[in-house]
Amino acid sequence: MTDPASSISQPTTVNVDLGERSYPIFIGAGLIDGDELVPFIPSSRAVIVSNTTVAPLYAERLTQALEAAGKRVDLIALPDGEQYKNLETLERIYDFLMEKQADRKTTLIALGGGVIGDITGFAAASFQRGVPFIQVPTTLLAQVDSSVGGKTGVNHPRGKNMIGAFYQPRCVLADTASLDTLPDRELSAGLAEVIKYGLLWDEDFLDWIEANVDALRQRDRGALTEAIRQSCLIKAEIVRQDEREGGIRALLNLGHTFGHAIEAGMGYGRWLHGEAVGAGMCMAADLSHRLELIDAATVKRIETLIASAGLPTRAPAELSTERLRELMDSDKKVEDGRLRLVLLGRLGQARLVDRVDDEAIRATIEATRATA
Amino acid sequence: MTDPASSISQPTTVNVDLGERSYPIFIGAGLIDGDELVPFIPSSRAVIVSNTTVAPLYAERLTQALEAAGKRVDLIALPDGEQYKNLETLERIYDFLMEKQADRKTTLIALGGGVIGDITGFAAASFQRGVPFIQVPTTLLAQVDSSVGGKTGVNHPRGKNMIGAFYQPRCVLADTASLDTLPDRELSAGLAEVIKYGLLWDEDFLDWIEANVDALRQRDRGALTEAIRQSCLIKAEIVRQDEREGGIRALLNLGHTFGHAIEAGMGYGRWLHGEAVGAGMCMAADLSHRLELIDAATVKRIETLIASAGLPTRAPAELSTERLRELMDSDKKVEDGRLRLVLLGRLGQARLVDRVDDEAIRATIEATRATA
Ligand SMILES: NC(=O)c1ccc[n+]([C@@H]2O[C@H](COP(=O)([O-])OP(=O)(O)OC[C@H]3O[C@@H](n4cnc5c(N)ncnc54)[C@H](O)[C@@H]3O)[C@@H](O)[C@H]2O)c1
Ligand SMILES: NC(=O)c1ccc[n+]([C@@H]2O[C@H](COP(=O)([O-])OP(=O)(O)OC[C@H]3O[C@@H](n4cnc5c(N)ncnc54)[C@H](O)[C@@H]3O)[C@@H](O)[C@H]2O)c1
Ligand SMILES: [Zn+2]
Ligand SMILES: [Zn+2]
Repeated sequence: MTDPASSISQPTTVNVDLGERSYPIFIGAGLIDGDELVPFIPSSRAVIVSNTTVAPLYAERLTQALEAAGKRVDLIALPDGEQYKNLETLERIYDFLMEKQADRKTTLIALGGGVIGDITGFAAASFQRGVPFIQVPTTLLAQVDSSVGGKTGVNHPRGKNMIGAFYQPRCVLADTASLDTLPDRELSAGLAEVIKYGLLWDEDFLDWIEANVDALRQRDRGALTEAIRQSCLIKAEIVRQDEREGGIRALLNLGHTFGHAIEAGMGYGRWLHGEAVGAGMCMAADLSHRLELIDAATVKRIETLIASAGLPTRAPAELSTERLRELMDSDKKVEDGRLRLVLLGRLGQARLVDRVDDEAIRATIEATRATA
Repeated sequence: MTDPASSISQPTTVNVDLGERSYPIFIGAGLIDGDELVPFIPSSRAVIVSNTTVAPLYAERLTQALEAAGKRVDLIALPDGEQYKNLETLERIYDFLMEKQADRKTTLIALGGGVIGDITGFAAASFQRGVPFIQVPTTLLAQVDSSVGGKTGVNHPRGKNMIGAFYQPRCVLADTASLDTLPDRELSAGLAEVIKYGLLWDEDFLDWIEANVDALRQRDRGALTEAIRQSCLIKAEIVRQDEREGGIRALLNLGHTFGHAIEAGMGYGRWLHGEAVGAGMCMAADLSHRLELIDAATVKRIETLIASAGLPTRAPAELSTERLRELMDSDKKVEDGRLRLVLLGRLGQARLVDRVDDEAIRATIEATRATA
């Protein structure tokens, strides 16, 4: 683990090893203005897909960098929001590509958060049965999570991410300086996933996060680069072992069954995903303790870290135990009526636990719900 | 080459060799009522996607065969026609799957012609990022062409097959008896592709087609089984060598640049695709002769075979040479303003010819246009 002071603004690269679909993740401050992407654009044409919030901030700089390398660049700015991650918006991308006479070698570049990354990735997977794709994630969540692993897609009115493809980008460019404009709540939401990687995979990284959480919240670029690098290394390793999500990839759901229940119960959008995952990880820690996998001091340590990242540690008071329990079932990891959950064996080591005792789950929800 | 008389109603299997994506094509009369599909349906649930023409003819039999093996089967019947091969219809399939609470292991079965196969294949590729897929093609064209090779997709208002995926089925079941209800014109259109395989790859097969074209048009099941088997063997071999269409797969476009120009010029739907390809192959033969690749007797032989299959051998009189020439350019195989075409080196051997002389192309169009 490098010390942030020694790594300030040094760009770094993480390689995602997926055989012939391998690709690099470039991480560093100011990369949007550089030429890292250029070798990954096979023809003279690229289309940037962004939204009305991010495009005004970064699209011109990215365009200039690519035009300087002789590329023709077109830009489409979609409306901003998870509610637009749907087939209708996807169709707008196809319409734009047809109108601009994009061809099989035209590269699609996603410039934005996870919503833009997911929808653009699926557009790239399906336009003319697949065109080159590059991710330029501009939220911390997208830089550490959604841009790695190849899951792309859109929502169906009846379910999130129901339509999509596994489709790997040619490269990912995570510019830590682009996080300067990110709202504090969104930054904290991204930190939830960073903490998740430490908890589920790497105790040393968790120690490092504890020591650097303030620097991260102050957007120290060296600290951000290191946090993104470690997160991508861990996610890349898990994805390498399980590209199509048959086994170990499930560990990435630590805190998510509880978190999804909170998101759904509150109505999507009121709690950010990362906020719900923050509380969800505290709930998973509490349950792990109840099942005698970790001790009380460890639970406390986890809660302290999550709180210090600016995240909630308790489920919202307005959702009853009954309701939360019910919503957990619709998250589809049920077998024979008993839940399968990702819990902590110890710090830095998550494990799948099948058929978790229902009384213990209810006790956890009771104990971790905020008092109204 | 087996003689049809000796192979009447003997089912046969062609294996498509694509590594871990390999799959069998079962060919024979009455297979819809059999249990060949059952081992390829990994869970207890399947959804048949068909249309309002084919579902009343075959869906109940297929359902009964699967239910007899303990499967739960749901059916969606889409409207019939190429004009419904679009994103809106695709969304109807997703809606149906969500409504029926289909999951990641629910198998989609395409029951119909190429339109149903293409759209169902893309729905299977994209629903929950990919669910199991089976093809039960019921047109000759789908049995010999569209169900083999993994191309799936839908049309965009501005272009055919613009949105889709490469996605291989678990297996294909071609029931020759299902062709009994196929209109004669559709049967002949399928024969165009059968003849195409002989012309581009296998002179012996071409001889066999000449000897059996009447039996084929009378829907002799032995002859059909043999024609489908040989066609699938040839397409499977070409696809094996070039799954993602980078090279040799282009040979499958013999007659298609001319054919697409005819289809587009007449307005899609007036000439069937196979009819346009029939005339297109005669035009390719004429051009091959002009470029001194084949002799006049060979051109004549090809025309005679195509006519005997019930297909046109001439471009429609109402399209001018200028118009047809123009439309050929929009078929996107242009390089430096000169066309790249699939022509015949000799019978049973097609080749790609770059930058074909424009005068020769015009002369061919002039010479092969029907007189009004
Ligand atoms: N594909 C995957 O593996 C994966 C993993 C996790 C999450 N996701 C998906 O990611 C999405 C959530 O991603 P998200 O959290 O990035 O949300 P988001 O894309 O909605 O971005 C959050 C907000 O920040 C704005 N924004 C983005 N970058 C900014 C910047 N640099 N400065 C100022 N504002 C900026 C966005 O416009 C938006 O309003 C969800 O749809 C989720 O399903 C996908
Ligand atoms: N994926 C590929 O590689 C590939 C290759 C070639 C063509 N295609 C696509 O295939 C489509 C054309 O396929 P098609 O020629 O099968 O057309 P089609 O699917 O429209 O079928 C032709 C007609 O026959 C009807 N029909 C089907 N089976 C029948 C039966 N057994 N009895 C009576 N009627 C029946 C259909 O309802 C339809 O009206 C086009 O969309 C084309 O783009 C795809
Ligand atoms: Zn998450
Ligand atoms: Zn064809």
